[in-house]
Amino acid sequence: MAGEAASALGLSMVVLAERPDDAACEVAAEVVIGSPLVEADMRALAARCDVITFDHELVDLSILEKLVADGIPVHPGVSTLGVAINKGHMRRVLAQAGVSIPAHAVIGLDSGEAGPGDQAVAEVGAFAQKHGWPIVLKATRGGYDGKGVWPVGDLDEARRVLSQLGDEVLVEEMVAMRAELAVMVARRPSGISVAWPAVETAQVGGVCREVLVPGRIPSGIMQQASEVGLRVAEIVDAVGVLAVELFWTTDGRLLVNEIAARPHNSGHWTIEGAVTSQFENHVRAVLDLPLGATAPQHDHVASVNIFGGPGGEDPVTLLADGLAVEGAHIHLYGKEGRPGRKLGHVTVAGIDEGDVRSRAWAAALALGTPRPDRVELPEGLG
Amino acid sequence: MAGEAASALGLSMVVLAERPDDAACEVAAEVVIGSPLVEADMRALAARCDVITFDHELVDLSILEKLVADGIPVHPGVSTLGVAINKGHMRRVLAQAGVSIPAHAVIGLDSGEAGPGDQAVAEVGAFAQKHGWPIVLKATRGGYDGKGVWPVGDLDEARRVLSQLGDEVLVEEMVAMRAELAVMVARRPSGISVAWPAVETAQVGGVCREVLVPGRIPSGIMQQASEVGLRVAEIVDAVGVLAVELFWTTDGRLLVNEIAARPHNSGHWTIEGAVTSQFENHVRAVLDLPLGATAPQHDHVASVNIFGGPGGEDPVTLLADGLAVEGAHIHLYGKEGRPGRKLGHVTVAGIDEGDVRSRAWAAALALGTPRPDRVELPEGLG
Repeated sequence: MAGEAASALGLSMVVLAERPDDAACEVAAEVVIGSPLVEADMRALAARCDVITFDHELVDLSILEKLVADGIPVHPGVSTLGVAINKGHMRRVLAQAGVSIPAHAVIGLDSGEAGPGDQAVAEVGAFAQKHGWPIVLKATRGGYDGKGVWPVGDLDEARRVLSQLGDEVLVEEMVAMRAELAVMVARRPSGISVAWPAVETAQVGGVCREVLVPGRIPSGIMQQASEVGLRVAEIVDAVGVLAVELFWTTDGRLLVNEIAARPHNSGHWTIEGAVTSQFENHVRAVLDLPLGATAPQHDHVASVNIFGGPGGEDPVTLLADGLAVEGAHIHLYGKEGRPGRKLGHVTVAGIDEGDVRSRAWAAALALGTPRPDRVELPEGLG
Repeated sequence: MAGEAASALGLSMVVLAERPDDAACEVAAEVVIGSPLVEADMRALAARCDVITFDHELVDLSILEKLVADGIPVHPGVSTLGVAINKGHMRRVLAQAGVSIPAHAVIGLDSGEAGPGDQAVAEVGAFAQKHGWPIVLKATRGGYDGKGVWPVGDLDEARRVLSQLGDEVLVEEMVAMRAELAVMVARRPSGISVAWPAVETAQVGGVCREVLVPGRIPSGIMQQASEVGLRVAEIVDAVGVLAVELFWTTDGRLLVNEIAARPHNSGHWTIEGAVTSQFENHVRAVLDLPLGATAPQHDHVASVNIFGGPGGEDPVTLLADGLAVEGAHIHLYGKEGRPGRKLGHVTVAGIDEGDVRSRAWAAALALGTPRPDRVELPEGLG
């Protein structure tokens, strides 16, 4: 989708892809086949473009440091990516800057064949003692869409999780949530930044199913979330767009849970819903061009993710059903259909929240998306 | 831009291009190098796709007839393209169906080295006698953006134009215009069709400089224009989108001037301005998928074309200036900058006509577009 935005501005995107049939190659002006973890491949990419940016976190910071040392513009930069890709480091940086985050501890592991060391297990126990069971264990690297996150209820469960992990674990309080929120921010190298309105996200098992704008959350909380988003972008010195995911807790706290230094699922609604999309502002920001307005263009916007159904059916073959839904803006990512795989999203904008939710869900279901267990579907679809 | 719309729906567009550096190739999933006038090239294209469609009128109907005979879906079809690419045929078909068009005659020429035959000149004279000088001479094929159109004031001028023409000429009354309008229609093979609201276009020398939605024309006339557009789409059996350009005359007539069986400059505003863009509905229509809603999403939309300035500067190098204009949606087509060449367009949407015009023009001028002679610029830019 960043490629579509770049193309509209007359810019050519060169894509580094592992395979020529990668979906991103379809909108690329040029393709370099290779891996972001291989220095020679990254240098081949750099030789063909003015600035390097990312749509995922699979990066090798030491390679990027070498490129930057050679004067190649890399946005977001190494320090921003360093924060985004390591949850332990993220917690340290945000806590140090005074940003509200869940109670946590980063605990070193000595996982050998004998399992986690007694000291690590004891530290987890002490944390739970202080904050109460259940707690949440998180891998500090490589987690996404609910992977790498384990709620555990006692020390035995904790020990089993720890035995699967590498050199460290992030231990967190189990936050009692009223809602989950997200804020997208775009920031230029000079520090000029803009935030889109905060949105409500509905997650099931750590996977985002639905984004609602403005969501069912008091506007004061949303405003506060926007301010936190802008502040986090400054703290981590983001360039490009940055997603900041937050918890609004039952005891009224607004806590930063996660950041991603790239266009993000919770910002897809901006394509039709805001004056400027997250993808266009990402392109503008990494090229240090003026940022576009982020105002919403509709009273209500709902964006529902499309997942592969149990039959692995390709949603492209179901387009006639999905497009029959009035006002459904369907985005399919060109990925092969697999059960449970995120294959696209649908956005509907309008004047009534129930109506836009109904239509967005109707189109997503028509395109093969399985009904979610823990999202309350709009009337008539439940 | 159709490629961007197809890509969003998870569809892959295969492009037939003369050269690999053609701008359309950048968003194509696959490229076939060749010419639409070479049967083997068209067959190579057909072998790689489910349906063939067009973004220009450079077609050989006899080749298309052979493909259709072999069962290859070609949308729009041969008869629709036949009407769109020959102004003489277009006039005959529309007149026969009772559509209001300018007074005209198609006159056969016998242009040898000795110049146009006396009979043709006499017929042009008789037409002018009846309808009054000046008249307009038009080539029946190959004209676009004001090319192939000659207003002439007397028989000597007419003779000079006729001597440059091939086997026939279209002679028309010089219409006294209050305004020019355009209607975009999308139509499926079954005949189901939708029209976007009619728009006002500002042409200078036959070249569209600006599109205004809803324009400064009474809504009754706009409504009538929409109905004419839908009727013309039915008459010519259009599949895909069809542009119908009309004159609103000082004596109150609404006359169809021109049709184009493809996405069209006068529909570019739909990308940001309407629920569904002309490009997405073109893709939907040629694949016989449900059409999207055409309602405008803003009170006022202005779309201003970007042309190459006298220095041949590439507007991409001026993006920082253009993007600094609040709410400017800039579309550059990736074409090489040449003085006078249409290189893109800017759309601005909002609640005040003067304001959206001002901003769209400000961005177009910032991107190097020369000031037009005969379009009244918004205050402050004139």
